[in-house]
Amino acid sequence: MKIENLCVKRLYGDVAGATTAGHKMAVKAGYIYQTFQGGYTLTPLGWRVVRNIEKIIREEMDAVDGQEILMPVVSGAEIWRESGRYDTVDVLAKFKGRGGAEYVLNPTHEEVVTDFVKSVLTTYRQLPFMVYQIQTKFRDELRVRAGLIRTREFIMKDAYSFHTSQSDLEKYYYRVLDAYKRVFARCGLRNVVDVLSSTGDMGGSIAHEFQLINEMGEDTIYLCDCGFRANKEMVTEGNEVCPKCGAPMHKVRGIEIGNIFQLGTKYSASMHLTYTAADGTEQNPIMGCYGIGVGRTMAAILEESADEYGPRWNMATAPFAVQVIALTDKEGKTNATAEKIYNDLRAAGIETLLDTRDARAGEKFADADLIAAPIRLVISTKNLANNVAEVKYRVNDMDTSGMPTLFALDTVVADTQNAIKQLSK
Amino acid sequence: MKIENLCVKRLYGDVAGATTAGHKMAVKAGYIYQTFQGGYTLTPLGWRVVRNIEKIIREEMDAVDGQEILMPVVSGAEIWRESGRYDTVDVLAKFKGRGGAEYVLNPTHEEVVTDFVKSVLTTYRQLPFMVYQIQTKFRDELRVRAGLIRTREFIMKDAYSFHTSQSDLEKYYYRVLDAYKRVFARCGLRNVVDVLSSTGDMGGSIAHEFQLINEMGEDTIYLCDCGFRANKEMVTEGNEVCPKCGAPMHKVRGIEIGNIFQLGTKYSASMHLTYTAADGTEQNPIMGCYGIGVGRTMAAILEESADEYGPRWNMATAPFAVQVIALTDKEGKTNATAEKIYNDLRAAGIETLLDTRDARAGEKFADADLIAAPIRLVISTKNLANNVAEVKYRVNDMDTSGMPTLFALDTVVADTQNAIKQLSK
Repeated sequence: MKIENLCVKRLYGDVAGATTAGHKMAVKAGYIYQTFQGGYTLTPLGWRVVRNIEKIIREEMDAVDGQEILMPVVSGAEIWRESGRYDTVDVLAKFKGRGGAEYVLNPTHEEVVTDFVKSVLTTYRQLPFMVYQIQTKFRDELRVRAGLIRTREFIMKDAYSFHTSQSDLEKYYYRVLDAYKRVFARCGLRNVVDVLSSTGDMGGSIAHEFQLINEMGEDTIYLCDCGFRANKEMVTEGNEVCPKCGAPMHKVRGIEIGNIFQLGTKYSASMHLTYTAADGTEQNPIMGCYGIGVGRTMAAILEESADEYGPRWNMATAPFAVQVIALTDKEGKTNATAEKIYNDLRAAGIETLLDTRDARAGEKFADADLIAAPIRLVISTKNLANNVAEVKYRVNDMDTSGMPTLFALDTVVADTQNAIKQLSK
Repeated sequence: MKIENLCVKRLYGDVAGATTAGHKMAVKAGYIYQTFQGGYTLTPLGWRVVRNIEKIIREEMDAVDGQEILMPVVSGAEIWRESGRYDTVDVLAKFKGRGGAEYVLNPTHEEVVTDFVKSVLTTYRQLPFMVYQIQTKFRDELRVRAGLIRTREFIMKDAYSFHTSQSDLEKYYYRVLDAYKRVFARCGLRNVVDVLSSTGDMGGSIAHEFQLINEMGEDTIYLCDCGFRANKEMVTEGNEVCPKCGAPMHKVRGIEIGNIFQLGTKYSASMHLTYTAADGTEQNPIMGCYGIGVGRTMAAILEESADEYGPRWNMATAPFAVQVIALTDKEGKTNATAEKIYNDLRAAGIETLLDTRDARAGEKFADADLIAAPIRLVISTKNLANNVAEVKYRVNDMDTSGMPTLFALDTVVADTQNAIKQLSK
C-alpha cells in the first residue's frame, strides 16, 4: 500500500470532541471515523488492528475447545419475551418490520444462543461444549464516551459454554479466565487485572471482570495486597476494607475490557433448554458466558500506550509491520530503492506501507508515528551511499535498545524478518 | 473436534419448510439454523464454510488493491435523507433510539461510505482507491426464500471505488469483474456467468450481475451463442432476440450471487463528496460499487453441488479437510489408532474431525457425507491388520479416480498432506 492511497485522514491540530488521550489518538491518526453518535467506521488502519486482535482471540478461544459460530445481529422479540428480559433490558433497541414482525437488535446473545442450542442438544454425551462468535451488537445507550470505549454499536467476542454440573462449569470457567489473561497479554496490555464482580441482570453466581487499570476508566475497582480484587459492586461503600484479610484496599480506576459469568441455569431453565442425563432424567445444562469488547480492547491499548506522537502497538496488533520511507532526492534514487525494498518485503509476505511522497522528512516521520508500524526503514541519499537502510522502532512494551539500527540493502528482507521475529517474542 | 461435541444437529428425515435441494441440505446437515424468519445462525459447520469463502474474497479483493474497512450495521437517518433514498428504498428498516435519534439498518452502504470518504478525500493524488468490507446487512424483505438464498439479515462483501475519470473507473471495473470470476471459480461454482443488467435504484450506467445458472433461481437470464448475456430487465419482453447479433437467445434461470455497478457521480454529487483536481477545480469522484452475497454463495454451492447424501465442497471451502472414522471394535484398537491419527493430523495443522462413537458403520458414513470433509480416513479391524487406513473422497468438481485409496499408517500425515495438495489444484 502506498501512503497516498491509504483511505485514512490524519489530523494535525487538536481533535474536537475527544476527551481522552486514546480517543484523540484514534481520531488524529485516522483509525476510526464517527458514522453516527456511538457508531464508528473502522478505517483500513483501525480494521487491521481489530482483525489482529480478533486473530489472537480466535486462537485462544480455539485453544479452550471453542467452536466459532455466527448468530444474527437482529432477532425476533419472542425469545426475549421467553427469557423475561424483553421489558427489563433498557438498552434493547426494538423495531417493527413491514409485515408487522417485532424485532430487536441483540445487545447480548444469551437468548439467541439458548434458542439455537435447543435445536442441537439432546444428550449428556454432547456436553460440555462452548460456542463463540465475534460479532456486531447494538446497545441503545443514553450516552456514549471516549470513542470506542463506550459506543452504541460495537464488536464483541461472546462465548457460551454448556455443562452437566456446576463443578464442570467451574473447571472450564477458570480455563477461560486463563485464556483471557493470555489474550490481553498478547495484545500488549500491561495493567490488566481480573476482579470479582456481581452478575447483575445476567443471572448466575460468580463473575469476574477484566479491568485495565487506567485513570480514564469509568469503573472503580479495589485491590488488596493480599491478592483480593473486586469491583465497586462487591464492596460496601464507606467500608472499604478487604473482605478476605481486613486490610484497607487500594481504590483505582479501570476500563472493563472483558467479563465472564457463571450463569447457572437462568437461561436454560427459563427457555426450557434440556438434555437427557446419564440417569435418564431431563436436566437443564449449567451455562457460562464470556465476553470481550473487541473494539474497546483496541481503544484500551491506545489509552494505555499511545504517546504524544502516535499509537504504539506490539508486533501482533500493529496495522503494518513495516513502513518504508524515502527521503526524496531530485534524481528519484531514494524513491526507486524504497520501492524495490517495498516490493521485496511484500513478496516475502510482510505487511508494508510505502512513503515516496514529495514531502518534507519531518512530515513523513510524523505521519509514520501516527500510522505506527513497529519497524521503519528510512532510505536517504546518505544511507544509499553506504548501501544501508536506517531502522527505527516504535513498539509497545518492548526494549529495542539492543536492536540493529542499520540494515544492509542486500540483506534487508532477511534482516527485517529477523527483527519482526525478535519483536514478536 | 470430536463429532459428538460438534454443536450441530443433523436431521435424518425430510426437512419441513425447505423448498429447494440446497436449502434442505443446509438444514439437514446442520449448517444453518433459523433464528428468525429470514435470519440464520451459522453453526460451526456453516460458519467454517463462510469463513473459507470470505478468505477467498479477501485475497481477490486485496489483489485488486482493495483496502478492507468495517462500517456500522446501523447509521443515522440523515445521510439517507441526504442521498434522497430515505423514503424510496422500501427494504430500509428504521427505528428510534431512547434519546429520540432516528436510525436505519443499512441494506447497502453507498451513503455510509460516501460520508466516510468525505472525511478522507481532498486531492486527486489520493485517487483511485477502493475500500471494501465483509459485513452484516438487513433488508426488510416482504418475503424470504430458500434458506440463505433470500434472507432479511445477510453477510455481504461490498466494495466501493473512487476515480478521477470514467475511463479510469471502467478500467478498474473490468479488473474487479475478472476478480469476481476468480472468486466464484475458487469457490467451486461451475455455471457462473456475468450478464449485463440495469442499474435500478443504485444510479449509474453500466452494471453486471454474476448469475449461477440453476433451475431453482429466481431470475431469468438470456444467453446468446454470440456471447451476449443479459438479465430480464435488459431484454424487451416478447422480443427475445439478441440485440447484438439478432439471433434468438436461450432463456435460463439464475441465482444472483454478485453484482457490480458503474455508479458515476450519483452519490458523490448528491452527498457533496469532492476533491481538488489537478487543474485546481473541485470535482465529484466517479464511483463504482461491487457486491457479493457471501452466505448466498454458500447456498449457491449447495444448490449446484449437493447430492442426495450431502454437500460437496472443494478443498478451499470445506468445513474440515479430513474426517477420521473408527469402525469401533470391542478392544478399542480402532478407536485408539483413529485418535492417534487425529492428533497427528491436527498437530500438522490439518482441520480434522474425529468419529470414535459407539455407532454403526452405516450411521458414521452417512454422517460423514452430511459433514462433507473431502477426505475420509476409515480405520477398521481389517485395515489395522494391514497397517493401512482406507481413504474415501467427497470433493466438488474433481475427478478422484486416480487418487490413492489406502494410506500406510506410518505415512498417513504426509499422504494426507499430499492428497490435500492434489485436491487443492
